[in-house]
Amino acid sequence: MHIIEQSLLDNLHCYADKTIYVAYSGGVDSQALLFGLSRLKQQQLITNQIIACHIHHGLSKNADSWQQFCQQQAVQLGVEFITARVDIDIESKSSLEALAREARYQSIQSLTPASSIILTGHHLDDQTETFLLALKRGAGVAGLSAMKSSTMLFERQVVRPLLDVSRKTIELYASSYELEFIDDESNIDENFDRNFIRHSVIPVISERWPSFTKTVARTAHNCQQTQILLDDLASKDLETIESTDESLSVEPLLSLSKERFNNLVIYFLKRRFGTTPSSSQLEQIKQQMLSPLDRMPEIVLGDVVVRRFKQTLYFTKHFQDISDWRWSSHRDDAFADTHLITLPDNLGEVGIGLSVTPQNNAALHQVRPPNSNQQVSIRFSHNNPKCHPENRAHRTSLKKVLKELNIAPWQRKRVPFVYYDEALVAVLGHFVCKEFKPDENSTKLTINYSFSQDSR
Amino acid sequence: MHIIEQSLLDNLHCYADKTIYVAYSGGVDSQALLFGLSRLKQQQLITNQIIACHIHHGLSKNADSWQQFCQQQAVQLGVEFITARVDIDIESKSSLEALAREARYQSIQSLTPASSIILTGHHLDDQTETFLLALKRGAGVAGLSAMKSSTMLFERQVVRPLLDVSRKTIELYASSYELEFIDDESNIDENFDRNFIRHSVIPVISERWPSFTKTVARTAHNCQQTQILLDDLASKDLETIESTDESLSVEPLLSLSKERFNNLVIYFLKRRFGTTPSSSQLEQIKQQMLSPLDRMPEIVLGDVVVRRFKQTLYFTKHFQDISDWRWSSHRDDAFADTHLITLPDNLGEVGIGLSVTPQNNAALHQVRPPNSNQQVSIRFSHNNPKCHPENRAHRTSLKKVLKELNIAPWQRKRVPFVYYDEALVAVLGHFVCKEFKPDENSTKLTINYSFSQDSR
Repeated sequence: MHIIEQSLLDNLHCYADKTIYVAYSGGVDSQALLFGLSRLKQQQLITNQIIACHIHHGLSKNADSWQQFCQQQAVQLGVEFITARVDIDIESKSSLEALAREARYQSIQSLTPASSIILTGHHLDDQTETFLLALKRGAGVAGLSAMKSSTMLFERQVVRPLLDVSRKTIELYASSYELEFIDDESNIDENFDRNFIRHSVIPVISERWPSFTKTVARTAHNCQQTQILLDDLASKDLETIESTDESLSVEPLLSLSKERFNNLVIYFLKRRFGTTPSSSQLEQIKQQMLSPLDRMPEIVLGDVVVRRFKQTLYFTKHFQDISDWRWSSHRDDAFADTHLITLPDNLGEVGIGLSVTPQNNAALHQVRPPNSNQQVSIRFSHNNPKCHPENRAHRTSLKKVLKELNIAPWQRKRVPFVYYDEALVAVLGHFVCKEFKPDENSTKLTINYSFSQDSR
Repeated sequence: MHIIEQSLLDNLHCYADKTIYVAYSGGVDSQALLFGLSRLKQQQLITNQIIACHIHHGLSKNADSWQQFCQQQAVQLGVEFITARVDIDIESKSSLEALAREARYQSIQSLTPASSIILTGHHLDDQTETFLLALKRGAGVAGLSAMKSSTMLFERQVVRPLLDVSRKTIELYASSYELEFIDDESNIDENFDRNFIRHSVIPVISERWPSFTKTVARTAHNCQQTQILLDDLASKDLETIESTDESLSVEPLLSLSKERFNNLVIYFLKRRFGTTPSSSQLEQIKQQMLSPLDRMPEIVLGDVVVRRFKQTLYFTKHFQDISDWRWSSHRDDAFADTHLITLPDNLGEVGIGLSVTPQNNAALHQVRPPNSNQQVSIRFSHNNPKCHPENRAHRTSLKKVLKELNIAPWQRKRVPFVYYDEALVAVLGHFVCKEFKPDENSTKLTINYSFSQDSR
């Protein structure tokens, strides 16, 4: 059996009977991939349904004819064909590769259900190119890991069965079966870094060291193994540093070496937000922890904001300004039916009514119902009224109470307040004001506040 | 101040007043290094004593004149000059670089005292070459770490103050001061892999990406940081796996992931023996642990032998066959003076006499003195005599006793036995035979057995 077909068989082994989506450009790599799969299916060595997915990039004037060609090929091979068109905003050549990749990812997501198996035609020479591009950026182990032979990407299992097969082998296979394929003219445009590496760097090195692409792939694999170890170490270190609310304790963080600290924060941000901080951002976080306790600098890392409160670091997405948000009831609402109110900025949900069912992971408050002419509202702003929390001896200003409750400053703007007209009734998740506590045997209005992950 | 002199100043900062040895070939790099140092000294910006060390390789017909040139230069610069000649057995071009490096290391060791500070002229382009050579071998993070700006090597601190400076900058510095230097003709011989990279690979890449050597250096630095983390993880994992006698417990080792196991064993062997096992050797050790308990395969990793006994792995250097070794006393020796006997194969020392002083880390035995016509001997072989250990109820064969004592099979050939003529008196480190126990108030012969590290 040809090494290509053998590789396919080996890699599909654990996906028996699953539908296989093939990322199919019609170039020689994906053409050989699709052809090999259809041969295995004809020989009944695999039984998977195979669907060729073609992305029409619209970048080349030939894109329409490529799409037609791919469809014809799929029909000839007896393979289902699906296609999507993406339009890419061409700005600069250097970012075009990234734009095209991003657009391809999005289309693949639109064409395939979650948890699909997606096969790509990436091969040994692609792997070397990816590695050298990472090296050109001065990457670390994560970047040098290049492509994995199987990985989760946008909730799909992306499998690269030809990653150990050279371009040469694929080309010979294609020519031995006289396969037709598309020759994308952009593949020879050396304005693309990848093409420069492909045409001007690797041939020079491989002529002297024919195994170069193989040794680079081995190095990439070694880096993948190392990345697993780095994640193990970070996860081990996090055990004593991360709280259940996904905040991090400053003191044990500061006791880590610089390398351990960086490794932990990179792992943590990657896992939680899918972002990777730069060296200077890591340094900023370190500085933030060392700054005096009365300063509370915020650090913005793209979509993520890092804040310190006392001895704890909190990582959140950007908060919206919700100071103007308000939900109000009709004045004559008797709350016989339960109102379900979705709070802004993913802060969760509030249920309010005379017969609310308590829920798990929710704060439950009971208050005296409003008078028939009172309007009930939920807001995130206040004018610092005096208030008397149920468990407190005396009245005092709301600001002072929130501070006493150890609520981080930025969270004080994200606590839902319940008002009857302009009187503060309850601070959801925390307390009911004494004058609104219901009598033992009278009717009670129940307020159920279901936190979301992001309400922290 | 020129960037070269600034780099020197920055790197020497922590070695104020120490003598600096410069690895001085007379090529442009080390010439610029020595010149820069002498300028700093003239300006009294440093006060270190500077000694230029030149190694005469004997590889080139010009080696004699190079040595002369270097000496003249050193005199001109007011720097002390020392030199050594090495002869390299030229076999193959490919190993010549390694041979020359090895010879250079040895000479440097002979020319400089331990704990010396040794400066080399390695620069940014050298770093990129070293990285790419590691990549050509398919190395992992350890290899990709390339050169460190400061590292312990053969008990010397090797400092590379110009590691962030490009070759171009060094050449411009040399030419601006019209420095003379040696042009080693072997530097353009592309039979050497390093020269191929220097002349045919880096220029192609750097023409397109002028920062390439800098980004590669950044990647190498990232790998150095990662290596520290890998060592941290191994050290953390070893805490629960390594015994005080430097053996490893099989059970927790087997519970580690493959990556963690490999990382731990690589770290352990590197730390203890300075060797790095190959992937196949790591696999062998894993198989050894999985083999049935009654099999005790030995694995040879270069100079190191790995043996399993029950649930423990032992790592030792190769053992000599010491079955024929014997020390014997004169028949009329009364042991008034203490005999100090050095055991073979680094097994330690035995003190034997009527007034031996007990020592720490030693096993102490007291026996009935020999009769005046008995010869005392120490041996490592036996004919499996019946014997009666002091703490055992009955006589039995020596083999059985050694097994009962839980002595690993290979260690049973490395236990010193004391004989009076052909009668077994004591098994050092373990027991005295009952019939040779001294009476309470009679004269006693004391035997003191000081283990060495290698006696395990």
